[in-house]
Amino acid sequence: MSVLIVGSTALDSIKTPRGQHPRLLGGSASYAAVAASFFAPVKMVGVVGDDFPKPCLRLYRKHGIDLEGLQIVPGKTFHWSGEYEVNMNNRRTLKTELGVFETFTPRLPASYQKSQYVLLANIAPSLQHLVLDQMRRPKFVVADTMDLWLNIALPDLMRLLPRLDGFVLNESEAQQLTQEHNVLRAAKKIHRMGPAYVIIKKGEHGAILSTRKKIFVAPAYPLAHVVDPTGAGDCFVGGMMGWLAASGGSVEAHLRQAIIHGSVLASYCCGGFGLKTLTRVTPAAIARRVKELGALTRF
Amino acid sequence: MSVLIVGSTALDSIKTPRGQHPRLLGGSASYAAVAASFFAPVKMVGVVGDDFPKPCLRLYRKHGIDLEGLQIVPGKTFHWSGEYEVNMNNRRTLKTELGVFETFTPRLPASYQKSQYVLLANIAPSLQHLVLDQMRRPKFVVADTMDLWLNIALPDLMRLLPRLDGFVLNESEAQQLTQEHNVLRAAKKIHRMGPAYVIIKKGEHGAILSTRKKIFVAPAYPLAHVVDPTGAGDCFVGGMMGWLAASGGSVEAHLRQAIIHGSVLASYCCGGFGLKTLTRVTPAAIARRVKELGALTRF
Repeated sequence: MSVLIVGSTALDSIKTPRGQHPRLLGGSASYAAVAASFFAPVKMVGVVGDDFPKPCLRLYRKHGIDLEGLQIVPGKTFHWSGEYEVNMNNRRTLKTELGVFETFTPRLPASYQKSQYVLLANIAPSLQHLVLDQMRRPKFVVADTMDLWLNIALPDLMRLLPRLDGFVLNESEAQQLTQEHNVLRAAKKIHRMGPAYVIIKKGEHGAILSTRKKIFVAPAYPLAHVVDPTGAGDCFVGGMMGWLAASGGSVEAHLRQAIIHGSVLASYCCGGFGLKTLTRVTPAAIARRVKELGALTRF
Repeated sequence: MSVLIVGSTALDSIKTPRGQHPRLLGGSASYAAVAASFFAPVKMVGVVGDDFPKPCLRLYRKHGIDLEGLQIVPGKTFHWSGEYEVNMNNRRTLKTELGVFETFTPRLPASYQKSQYVLLANIAPSLQHLVLDQMRRPKFVVADTMDLWLNIALPDLMRLLPRLDGFVLNESEAQQLTQEHNVLRAAKKIHRMGPAYVIIKKGEHGAILSTRKKIFVAPAYPLAHVVDPTGAGDCFVGGMMGWLAASGGSVEAHLRQAIIHGSVLASYCCGGFGLKTLTRVTPAAIARRVKELGALTRF
């Protein structure tokens, strides 16, 4: 099965204590699509300007990503520029130039509309709605989000939640959304807002999956060297959805393995600037880290 | 095998968003000893004043804790008073009255000196040295510490590290000690300071065990309601040492299970003020949470 992924498609200029790289391929859809592509065919929905570098398109194609839903329009590609502090957990945005993203309206080609697995990667909730409006009875819909939408588009987001099977967000976002410091109680409150599956990301501390009745405590793959954490959360959810689409059948039965595979893709994402490391990863390398994670957590 | 535990023995007045309790039995040795007592006999070294409440002595005895090494001297028992913020991760000390602790010199009864498992719970490193000076060839020595000693007794602590098999500390303390933000690199640096086993506690995010060649990523037992986190770290290391002493044989072979059992005791500790919940826990309840932790993390 394929995964439909909508999100931002951008150029990122990133500065970390380990270096500085201008105009890398970025955006939530790019990271999620590349991550998902290791397991399942991906159909991507997004927009770029006519300045979008050819090598970026080649990178998508190298990963077999279906670009029929990628609009290439006159104007400038969304450009984000940010800087990380020494501990890599704090980053600040230096510049956001929306460009063609400002007027983006996702349009799904006919071949996309029957997709069974839908990932609404981080993007304005109103656009996530527009994608769902064009879908015909998808099997499993997951959305990611960010603090920005909690701040400026909360009503849209609250209307989106009942339309989702799964919702993925950071621990701090879960706290902000629920006014609840405890992660388990926050997850419970989010269930009541709609989604049957709540996945709370804790960065280097892993993630928690809550399924109303059960929880799963997922480890992060421990890294001695983080080069650039940009996109790690997108790779996590992209890898997860790719694994689910590839597995088919019961989501419940495959979700833990899906999360672990997402976690491993996120770890590779952190190993290089932008998508540099991730795009060179092999299926064998992914399988190795999944196995290692098993050994690292067994007791 | 028994565990020898030295540390502070105190009365704690604790305020959290869930309530306020004056003069509870506290101190690193008290928490660690009660936790260890679920698995192995405990010999405790500490000091209290002649104001020490009888019910506290009864609580020690209920747990079969050998009190030959507990000095009861004229004066006031060490009294700590603190307050937790809403998220329970930040606390501030309101008052510290050292009392008889100020002139405490640990003296080991002859029957203690051959103990094989030694836990130097959180206390001034100079006192941890004094205990080791009186030991005859222990098999496995572990020390815990706190930020205070990094600030005011670093040379003592640095001299202690080569005398230890295992060293337990918080993530923030590991960062302070090594000037290293990454937990794996911090652990590596601490190995070079002496201990073969480095255990970095991450509170609700679990713990990391580093054994030079391997690491173990240990989960915390997820709690929806934290009543009072005081002493959780002491229970963690106490439970771990109790489990190791009860298991005997190769430390390496039992350390993961020991850490998981420590983690479960820490979770029970957080469920009530002071030692209220922990002291009522049954072996069956501990086994249940250990099994649950297995189920919560399996993939």
